[in-house]
Amino acid sequence: MTDALKIGVAGLGTVGSALFRIIGERHNMLTEICGRPVTIVAVSARDRSRDRGIDISKVEWFDDPVAMARDADIDVLVELIGGEGDPALAAAKVALARGVHVVTANKALLARHGVELARTAEDAGVLLNFEAAVAGGIPVIKALRESLTGNAISRVYGILNGTCNYILTRMQKDNMGFAECLKEAQRLGYAEADPTFDIEGNDTAHKLAILTSLAFGTEIAGDDIYLEGITNISIEDIHAAEELGYRIKLLGVAQRTASGIEQRVHPTMVPLDSMIAQVDGVTNAVSIEADIVGELVLSGPGAGGDATASAVLGDIADIAKARPGHQHGPALGRPAAHLAPYQRARMRSHEGGYFISLKVEDRTGVFASIAKQMADAKISLESIVQRAPLRKDTDPTVKTIVLVTHATTEASVRAAVEAVRGEGYLRGEPQVIRIERTQAA
Amino acid sequence: MTDALKIGVAGLGTVGSALFRIIGERHNMLTEICGRPVTIVAVSARDRSRDRGIDISKVEWFDDPVAMARDADIDVLVELIGGEGDPALAAAKVALARGVHVVTANKALLARHGVELARTAEDAGVLLNFEAAVAGGIPVIKALRESLTGNAISRVYGILNGTCNYILTRMQKDNMGFAECLKEAQRLGYAEADPTFDIEGNDTAHKLAILTSLAFGTEIAGDDIYLEGITNISIEDIHAAEELGYRIKLLGVAQRTASGIEQRVHPTMVPLDSMIAQVDGVTNAVSIEADIVGELVLSGPGAGGDATASAVLGDIADIAKARPGHQHGPALGRPAAHLAPYQRARMRSHEGGYFISLKVEDRTGVFASIAKQMADAKISLESIVQRAPLRKDTDPTVKTIVLVTHATTEASVRAAVEAVRGEGYLRGEPQVIRIERTQAA
Repeated sequence: MTDALKIGVAGLGTVGSALFRIIGERHNMLTEICGRPVTIVAVSARDRSRDRGIDISKVEWFDDPVAMARDADIDVLVELIGGEGDPALAAAKVALARGVHVVTANKALLARHGVELARTAEDAGVLLNFEAAVAGGIPVIKALRESLTGNAISRVYGILNGTCNYILTRMQKDNMGFAECLKEAQRLGYAEADPTFDIEGNDTAHKLAILTSLAFGTEIAGDDIYLEGITNISIEDIHAAEELGYRIKLLGVAQRTASGIEQRVHPTMVPLDSMIAQVDGVTNAVSIEADIVGELVLSGPGAGGDATASAVLGDIADIAKARPGHQHGPALGRPAAHLAPYQRARMRSHEGGYFISLKVEDRTGVFASIAKQMADAKISLESIVQRAPLRKDTDPTVKTIVLVTHATTEASVRAAVEAVRGEGYLRGEPQVIRIERTQAA
Repeated sequence: MTDALKIGVAGLGTVGSALFRIIGERHNMLTEICGRPVTIVAVSARDRSRDRGIDISKVEWFDDPVAMARDADIDVLVELIGGEGDPALAAAKVALARGVHVVTANKALLARHGVELARTAEDAGVLLNFEAAVAGGIPVIKALRESLTGNAISRVYGILNGTCNYILTRMQKDNMGFAECLKEAQRLGYAEADPTFDIEGNDTAHKLAILTSLAFGTEIAGDDIYLEGITNISIEDIHAAEELGYRIKLLGVAQRTASGIEQRVHPTMVPLDSMIAQVDGVTNAVSIEADIVGELVLSGPGAGGDATASAVLGDIADIAKARPGHQHGPALGRPAAHLAPYQRARMRSHEGGYFISLKVEDRTGVFASIAKQMADAKISLESIVQRAPLRKDTDPTVKTIVLVTHATTEASVRAAVEAVRGEGYLRGEPQVIRIERTQAA
């Protein structure tokens, strides 16, 4: 029997506690599969005495995770503290530098310091694994980093935030407004008390930045992402989309274009008959388009203590199965020194279809004027629909006109919408939602 | 720079030729990612002179793949010969025994000899990788073998045969009969001249047997699978399913039950709003239900030269990234000696919902008699629908009655259908299709 793999866990929240419990319960199974025991020998958290439903009395306690990373007799540091700065950053750096493998679920940390940490891991000849950082229990990091080796990837996109997908699903299925669905999500523990980070798309952006780097071999650019949240999506938009054969999802999309890489997070219309449209509730899904294999779609639980712990455990098992001294490929898929600089494509150059919903004065000539503004901006229309007001209390002098465009550019759409605004008949803010072409449709 | 990883490819059909071409074209990319060059140094195929669009003049040629496995100066044997017996089996065994890693896409070989080969690989301390053997380019082997380490799996099911899914999709979308769709599939190269192996479910069964072993830690039992192909599925069945909110797919299902493991391949009704129902054409998909992570669904191209070559390349890259002497976990997820014997659950004990379609004489009392036979067999019905004949030339004295049952057992359904048969009003063979509960529905 080889020596046990000794683990130190920094952070004992939902994920850390679940991991602690599971590693205890599955001791024999893990030993059999990994060929050696996997044992948690040290933990660190803010409050030693808090009841977490686990017995930490037999493992070494550290008040300071950085001290644990530096001093504990461990082979692997599991970083579950969260946050892009210290102590998570310091703990990870200290551990890697002394030759301790690091497993982390911390997307914010990787989005900001991933390249630096990858370089430190490579220099020390240890592993930096982070399956849990993106899309929870879905093995998308492994797919990009290992399975697709040799493929050139053209696009990766997905539903990366369970909170947003839960809200959009409830709105669509139960005909409820955004605010009400958000409250439901909070009540069920799917949304934070301050949900800004989720609903404005920042969480999705962090995860997308990591996927972009793995997909395209570029440096991580977590701050250089076009960002639009779901707070402006109304139940009317969802109904209009449905009628036109689409569903609205918050997607993170990274796409290689002639002028660079598009990284964008925004509400997106996807065809009803695509797999991604069927992804409901807190479930996540990622689509990868690769030149040799074609399109892969992976879906599963994107969050939750157990699902995240499962991904962390998979990362730990990879280390346990490897003989000491082995390094299973660089953290970001290729050596940190070989990562290309991130070149951002301008959002104005984005090409695609658009859904444009305009609340306008109900008078003669408006329809024709809108059609003319679109034509002047060289936008070709797939459909124009005038929708009846949904609610009885809606102003009868205002009607909604919904346009779906063929492929055009963001710049053209912005110009056309501004031109329409100049005509003076708009009665509310225009709604513009990008349509994403999916393979299935 | 570490030494190149030297590859011998046995079999230069569609997959082998694609692999040869891709490894040549992506030389620099592979070297960068793997930290060493990956080079094909030897090949073996039936006919040396055949034009495959690749230049094999600079690599060593072997007429006999077993000789190549035994004598060539290689680190990895890629077995793409196919077939469960020699020379594929002999080549793999000889290679493993002398300490050469083996990568194979050969499901028939693994379904029959997988445990023996895994044991040989373990004894020699080398890898046996076979991502391409199940569901082509979808990284389902890696998910089960690595990502889900520590999870207990309750069910794995999927669309594992592109030929069948193509035919069923065409029938549904284009309202075409089975025979016509099969011809289309043959014309497009999606079906063999003799399609028996695909349409009768044998190919799905081979892949399922491999998934079962990985999911449940049992020995591979490729011959102990309930098998029902798609040749009896009519366009009427597909329409009836659609009306009831279902789609018909050929699924391979492995499920842990109290009395053992169910392994079954049969046409299956899945809810229209499930992800698996959206998997169209030659695309494959696999769902894995695991106790810690929850449900994962992975979809992608299940066949084709490039997609299969991509999976083979991922397996090769895993070996290239590993330092010599490293073994990245046992081939079947746990050591061959620890695999539990396969205990088959009896098909008669299978529990689930059923779709039963009966062509009956159009006379008073038949409806009541059917309802009574179901009640006598303790089958509770979710719906009974009398369907109008679809075609004008249908006999007007015959009507079709469609039943959907709540969860019951296979034994009850068989008994009830036999009892109905005894009543003398059946005008054709009864159609019985199992309904599979999916997480989404």
